[in-house]
Amino acid sequence: MASASRAATPLLKDELDIVIPTIRNLDFLEMWRPFFQPYHLIIVQDGDPSKTIRVPEGFDYELYNRNDINRMLGPKASCISFKDSACRCFGYMVSKKKYIYTIDDDCFVAKDPSGKDINALEQHIKNLLSPSTPFFFNTLYDPYRDGADFVRGYPFSLREGVPTAVSHGLWLNIPDYDAPTQLVKPLERNKRYVDAILTIPKGTLFPMCGMNLAFDRELIGPAMYFGLMGDGQPIGRYDDMWAGWCTKVITDHLGLGVKTGLPYIWHSKASNPFVNLKKEYNGIFWQEELIPFFQSVSLPKDATTVQKCYLELAKQVRAKLGKVDGYFNKLADSMVTWIEAWDELNPPKGGVATANGPPKK
Amino acid sequence: MASASRAATPLLKDELDIVIPTIRNLDFLEMWRPFFQPYHLIIVQDGDPSKTIRVPEGFDYELYNRNDINRMLGPKASCISFKDSACRCFGYMVSKKKYIYTIDDDCFVAKDPSGKDINALEQHIKNLLSPSTPFFFNTLYDPYRDGADFVRGYPFSLREGVPTAVSHGLWLNIPDYDAPTQLVKPLERNKRYVDAILTIPKGTLFPMCGMNLAFDRELIGPAMYFGLMGDGQPIGRYDDMWAGWCTKVITDHLGLGVKTGLPYIWHSKASNPFVNLKKEYNGIFWQEELIPFFQSVSLPKDATTVQKCYLELAKQVRAKLGKVDGYFNKLADSMVTWIEAWDELNPPKGGVATANGPPKK
Repeated sequence: MASASRAATPLLKDELDIVIPTIRNLDFLEMWRPFFQPYHLIIVQDGDPSKTIRVPEGFDYELYNRNDINRMLGPKASCISFKDSACRCFGYMVSKKKYIYTIDDDCFVAKDPSGKDINALEQHIKNLLSPSTPFFFNTLYDPYRDGADFVRGYPFSLREGVPTAVSHGLWLNIPDYDAPTQLVKPLERNKRYVDAILTIPKGTLFPMCGMNLAFDRELIGPAMYFGLMGDGQPIGRYDDMWAGWCTKVITDHLGLGVKTGLPYIWHSKASNPFVNLKKEYNGIFWQEELIPFFQSVSLPKDATTVQKCYLELAKQVRAKLGKVDGYFNKLADSMVTWIEAWDELNPPKGGVATANGPPKK
Repeated sequence: MASASRAATPLLKDELDIVIPTIRNLDFLEMWRPFFQPYHLIIVQDGDPSKTIRVPEGFDYELYNRNDINRMLGPKASCISFKDSACRCFGYMVSKKKYIYTIDDDCFVAKDPSGKDINALEQHIKNLLSPSTPFFFNTLYDPYRDGADFVRGYPFSLREGVPTAVSHGLWLNIPDYDAPTQLVKPLERNKRYVDAILTIPKGTLFPMCGMNLAFDRELIGPAMYFGLMGDGQPIGRYDDMWAGWCTKVITDHLGLGVKTGLPYIWHSKASNPFVNLKKEYNGIFWQEELIPFFQSVSLPKDATTVQKCYLELAKQVRAKLGKVDGYFNKLADSMVTWIEAWDELNPPKGGVATANGPPKK
């Protein structure tokens, strides 16, 4: 009975949206149908709005193209990337759910070592619903999994953990390499199934990939801005990285957790390394400045909400990265616009928040 | 030819000692014979020196009991624990090799998921000979393993990594739990083989278990002091934890790396949780103070050797932990004695170092 009722009502059915940037691959949703069909989809079309995206029968979805974004956000639409999958973050903004799962359309269902299809979404939900342990490393990985626990020497006061804001899933087959590595190792495939989930420790940055990513929108949503990429921008393929660095700094500040590891998806297709190199080359150079910046960012004590943290971060981006390239001034502006747009579409519960005081009812 | 010659000359044959505290289990060395026999063993007898430890034929070993320790160290022998496996650190001190592997006598050869015997020592050596990446997290785990690399967004300037000082291996079957967890979960077994090695990020502490541990003695040896445990001491089972916290703080300061994960050994026997509780109860209480202490320790810039770092740490232990319990004053004294004894048995190459200047030839 218990398992039958679980099959009938998937975990968090009414609390999670699946956000997908443009679906080019018709097999994609068919393959995920057993796992995704119970959930609501938000599709954000990244290119020409006159093109039609075909969604197979039976899925519950809403679809936004550039015209919709422009209409809904007006001048604030400038913060949403065009002709780049970074536009997906518009979907995070329009969702009304507590949780988001985002996935690329070249990511298929992977198999575990026993040959069973992996329900990636279910594992992400488990990750998000169990705490994180950012303050001390547990050598047996996620202590909350079946068959695991905290090992000898783990302080008892830290065993409750903290709420998990982000679940970062991995990829079998095509690894998520940058263009230079793709060029050097065109045939490398990720065949190693690592049966682990772990918390990325406080103070440690990581490269967050947006291919297979879930997060708690209420806890961290406004930090999941995928930046300015694609059309008219001097950089691409750093959308998720940017979001990851901002998110990690803010989760660390707010005492939230980020997990990485399971679940795997099957990444089917390597993107073109020559095209990627063109998108990435500024980023490869700039990241050498960005990492020390994010490693040394300090947020003030009174930054107690994600929005306040993010606006403070925008200020520091302008002050410290503007001199790296003018692009970062534009990005800092967009970070502010993003928060304004987020708050417009997601008015605080109980009234409108103001910068200088509690919400006015 | 290549593999035959590798079989004939195991990795680092003349550069590694295996240090084992008292061997109670006669099967232990027989089981490890194919892997350990080419190496030199240092056995440190933890209890009654009149008892005889039987070492099977064919092993190259030296054995030290309490009388040997007293004779060799004189009054400085006070820093070596008695009737506790913490005495193993005496073996680190008397070794003249670059690398140490230490293992408990209830740890047997584990099997990998394909059923093959795991050569734990070989994997430790691989871990120690490849760099660590403490400054940024790689989501595909150890980037230096076959089939892995740095993922997109990993700064290129950090891809050379840093020298690895410690390789912390794990345990299948009986997990390394503290007494309260043992009491609550007497039947839990670790059955999950996680095919990963990863660097513990800079600034993150971990519970270092001495059951299955390798390290580079030249890089970090003097920090591997296992403290005062056992006979006459108010605490036990924190020897490896103490060494791990000191070691991690010092590797972080000196820009060295610590890896954890593979290889697994098969931990055959759970120790008695009631006895363990008696040994641990002070530690369980004290570690709540120790962790914040180690998390906030800062070593001065001129602490450029492990010895200098360790003496500075001893000073801070006395200043900040002495008020937690008088035991920590005694421990701080022993930390200083340990370094004095280490330097006596391991005079700096090229002359004797002095506290106030370069080595005098």
